[in-house]
Amino acid sequence: MAAEGMDKASQLLENNSSAGDAVEALIKEVEAYPFYKSVGYGGLPNEEGVVQMDAAFMDGDTFAQGSVAAIENTLHAVSVARKLSQEHYNSFRVGEGATKYATLNGFEMTNMLTDRAKARWQKRLKEIEQEHLNPYDGHDTVGAITLAQSGSMAVATSTSGLFMKKQGRIGDSPLSGSGFYVDSEIGGAAATGLGEDIMKGCLSYEIVRRMGEGESPQEACDHAVYPFIRKLKKHYGKAGEFSLVAMNNKGEWGVATNVEFTFCVATNKEPRKILMANPGENDTTIIEPITQEWLDAYEKRIHEPIN
Amino acid sequence: MAAEGMDKASQLLENNSSAGDAVEALIKEVEAYPFYKSVGYGGLPNEEGVVQMDAAFMDGDTFAQGSVAAIENTLHAVSVARKLSQEHYNSFRVGEGATKYATLNGFEMTNMLTDRAKARWQKRLKEIEQEHLNPYDGHDTVGAITLAQSGSMAVATSTSGLFMKKQGRIGDSPLSGSGFYVDSEIGGAAATGLGEDIMKGCLSYEIVRRMGEGESPQEACDHAVYPFIRKLKKHYGKAGEFSLVAMNNKGEWGVATNVEFTFCVATNKEPRKILMANPGENDTTIIEPITQEWLDAYEKRIHEPIN
Repeated sequence: MAAEGMDKASQLLENNSSAGDAVEALIKEVEAYPFYKSVGYGGLPNEEGVVQMDAAFMDGDTFAQGSVAAIENTLHAVSVARKLSQEHYNSFRVGEGATKYATLNGFEMTNMLTDRAKARWQKRLKEIEQEHLNPYDGHDTVGAITLAQSGSMAVATSTSGLFMKKQGRIGDSPLSGSGFYVDSEIGGAAATGLGEDIMKGCLSYEIVRRMGEGESPQEACDHAVYPFIRKLKKHYGKAGEFSLVAMNNKGEWGVATNVEFTFCVATNKEPRKILMANPGENDTTIIEPITQEWLDAYEKRIHEPIN
Repeated sequence: MAAEGMDKASQLLENNSSAGDAVEALIKEVEAYPFYKSVGYGGLPNEEGVVQMDAAFMDGDTFAQGSVAAIENTLHAVSVARKLSQEHYNSFRVGEGATKYATLNGFEMTNMLTDRAKARWQKRLKEIEQEHLNPYDGHDTVGAITLAQSGSMAVATSTSGLFMKKQGRIGDSPLSGSGFYVDSEIGGAAATGLGEDIMKGCLSYEIVRRMGEGESPQEACDHAVYPFIRKLKKHYGKAGEFSLVAMNNKGEWGVATNVEFTFCVATNKEPRKILMANPGENDTTIIEPITQEWLDAYEKRIHEPIN
């Protein structure tokens, strides 16, 4: 879902933009697109029909961080998070206080509940009542890591969270070390999946730490993610979805996931491509290009009518 | 401030209570005591005069976690967090959604703003206006780690956060890996200080990780905390207050801090004692017993009238 945003970010980086400007532009593109059902405008609402969003921004040069959680009516939660990262105090705000900050600081406010998202919510309410389905599937954060020509790095995340979540529920996306982490001297990481379980492992921090000890991004992802999933299954009895992406300060990247997971990469050496990752054997990750069929089916799926 | 709570927790552990019951009882004692100005009842309000609290609970056997942030009118935020830790989904709730959850689940609701806290808030408003003081001092989380006779461990935190914080501001206390972390096979850690800076380093996770690699709790605290403070000063230009405590699954403990910091320890070998930590030379920590004079002055200070 981040392909168009990534093209915009790549353009900016080619023109010597900062890592922060590029990552914000990328996320904003995803937030504004109404057909992504788990981020920003068009994102799915909580149990009560309210779209509550979580987002974060971190500057890998300064470690400045800003986060918002359970923010409402705000078109670009990531921009609010970035603005908060400029404050030493009060840089993580939630609920009404986060929404008020966005309003006071002139951010664009809008009704984030599209007709399409509302229809999907109403359909799900009916399904839950009639078919006793587990309400909590359909979660997919956008997370991105950028590396500028200067060597600076940034990371940002944005999500409308778990579909049918309870009011005020927040996930890993706005949490330092869980949903995101970056250090320009090493690299960055970001997560998507079941936030409640991702935060039990602090996996974005752990991946960056491992890269700092010399592991490649792929090694760091594999070594941090798969053993932790096993550990969680042993101790907690189960583990939700985990998908982690990482990039180091040489532009090398890695990914680990326990489900089919598509992601997007562009560097100054290789044009933007959409890839698919799946868990492999012995704590490895299988990465392949997606097919045109897959892409066509995805495009069709996100636009098809809600009955 | 945790001494009375610790006596209660010690009693419970002697009688074979679970680590979770003991840590909750400890924190509840601090939350209910009106003269601690940074936790629970009597805690200082935010800029608008509203007491908003953050709390967390983690079970070191299962990794189950529950957190609340910016919760209002709730006498025992830690108990709400513990109850949330029993849910796989929606285990971290903020703002109105957190308060609603507490109400619906029968937790004791009360006006958390005491006359004393209100007087202090009004005085501070005047000082800020007249003397242009930095509004943000006076923050002190209660964090505790317990080890049961069974070998199980738990950790919990509770705070009313930064005095004069903005509405919806949350700190590190409810954030996994930053404010708290525990693994019964290794040990646990908890933090207090400036949450905005503590979360930049994921220090509770890092301390537990280091103990897992064989470092003593004191080594893990010293090695995680002091180099990170230097790193933050280099990258961010400054660093707020950091105080971290840790205990491993043998009951050995450690602490690191960049300010004068008092804390409390009790084990089956040594009776409960109140100690003071200060940063030493070369990334070490100086730990000494507090004097009766210090304790008397503290008791006097927390009870003296607000003018």
